[in-house]
Amino acid sequence: MTGQKPIPVMEIFGPTIQGEGMVIGRKTMFVRTGGCDYRCRWCDSAFTWDGTGKSKPMVAEDIISKLDTLAAGRFDHVTLSGGNPALHAGIGDLIHKLHAKNIQAAVETQGTIWQDWLTHVDDVTISPKPPSSGMETDWKKLDTFMTKLSPQKTSLKVVIFNEEDYAFAKLVHMRYPHISFFLQVGNDDIHTTDDTTLLTQLRYHYEQLIEKVMLDSTLTNVRVLPQLHTWMWGNKRGV
Amino acid sequence: MTGQKPIPVMEIFGPTIQGEGMVIGRKTMFVRTGGCDYRCRWCDSAFTWDGTGKSKPMVAEDIISKLDTLAAGRFDHVTLSGGNPALHAGIGDLIHKLHAKNIQAAVETQGTIWQDWLTHVDDVTISPKPPSSGMETDWKKLDTFMTKLSPQKTSLKVVIFNEEDYAFAKLVHMRYPHISFFLQVGNDDIHTTDDTTLLTQLRYHYEQLIEKVMLDSTLTNVRVLPQLHTWMWGNKRGV
Ligand code: SF4
Ligand code: SF4
Repeated sequence: MTGQKPIPVMEIFGPTIQGEGMVIGRKTMFVRTGGCDYRCRWCDSAFTWDGTGKSKPMVAEDIISKLDTLAAGRFDHVTLSGGNPALHAGIGDLIHKLHAKNIQAAVETQGTIWQDWLTHVDDVTISPKPPSSGMETDWKKLDTFMTKLSPQKTSLKVVIFNEEDYAFAKLVHMRYPHISFFLQVGNDDIHTTDDTTLLTQLRYHYEQLIEKVMLDSTLTNVRVLPQLHTWMWGNKRGV
Repeated sequence: MTGQKPIPVMEIFGPTIQGEGMVIGRKTMFVRTGGCDYRCRWCDSAFTWDGTGKSKPMVAEDIISKLDTLAAGRFDHVTLSGGNPALHAGIGDLIHKLHAKNIQAAVETQGTIWQDWLTHVDDVTISPKPPSSGMETDWKKLDTFMTKLSPQKTSLKVVIFNEEDYAFAKLVHMRYPHISFFLQVGNDDIHTTDDTTLLTQLRYHYEQLIEKVMLDSTLTNVRVLPQLHTWMWGNKRGV
């Protein structure tokens, strides 16, 4: 194992569908890494960084054998999520080993930390965080991502909770108009277990967001999506 | 207008989101053409061919000016749906004129009738009809589509109502493994106005379909999606 950098892994599960963004509906496995350089107010994965969850250091082979234990032969796509997976240099080796087995890799990151292995990822979703998160975007860093990544394999996704977030989304899209752009409804009730009420709220917010975008002449080449997994399974983890 | 072939148009509406398939969530206008060479048992657009709706012959300019009346400056994508839009030679001219205005065009067809203008379409969804439709697939004709279309711009979508449909979906995917493949939950209650009950049913069927696909080692590089517009607006037309 010399030279291999372990990755702090919070959870591995699947196969399930990707509920969001550019490959919504895709059959995929999930590997969720620990640690984040952000502290978003509404983070739905705060257990990856607030001390309430515990990660396990795993090298690529460990992760792949865990994936195989869960679903050998039933998957060809793995989504690396966090936290911010781009904190971890060891993911480069994991992607390399997945590709050797004809398995694709997707990554979601907020676009704050560059890793060269990102150029090998099949679907990269960059999700700059809007004002409601309490975080601030470093546009120069984001520019680096957009310069280095291939547009065909990259998308931008902004989660919308309020008017300011919507204005921020426009800025992002106008700065990188050639990158596939997704607006996503924010989930502002990340702790409820009342799935029916949650779905009613999320549908309502989705309809409102659709209406707004449809009337907007500055947002044309865009996609507006819900989080399908939340519509299906509420705030439950590991589905 | 010499040489222009009018297209029988049933309805033009939007902008709204594309509720299905490869560009799910995309802001788009819809142009629905009249006439179909199929008679699917569960067709949700039977008014395009069963005599209950009335079409209007329109040439490309008419259609574009109607689109502009509805939403000038607020759209850059038009979805041509039916019926079977591939019945109409005149659509070639429409696509040409849309492209001249930097507007993309998507088409959905069952893959029975080839038109050379299909090679100019930005997103082509081929939806071969499963056994529950009562229709039979002409595989040779479908092969023509798959040979002539560019894989990057093409997807296959199969609607699933039952076990036989699921088996059919596998056949389609195995025959064209390099084409993006979507499984979609069928709506077997196309007349109800009880949106709440409909959503409960559709979610249940979607969850069942997801579970099935997740356990299936012959379906890995696939996407499983609902019809988002039906989840949002039930069986209402023109949204
Ligand atoms: S960037 Fe993502 S994981 Fe990190 S705090 Fe924000 S929402 Fe949570
Ligand atoms: S091919 Fe489409 S429009 Fe034609 S009958 Fe079947 S479902 Fe209806």
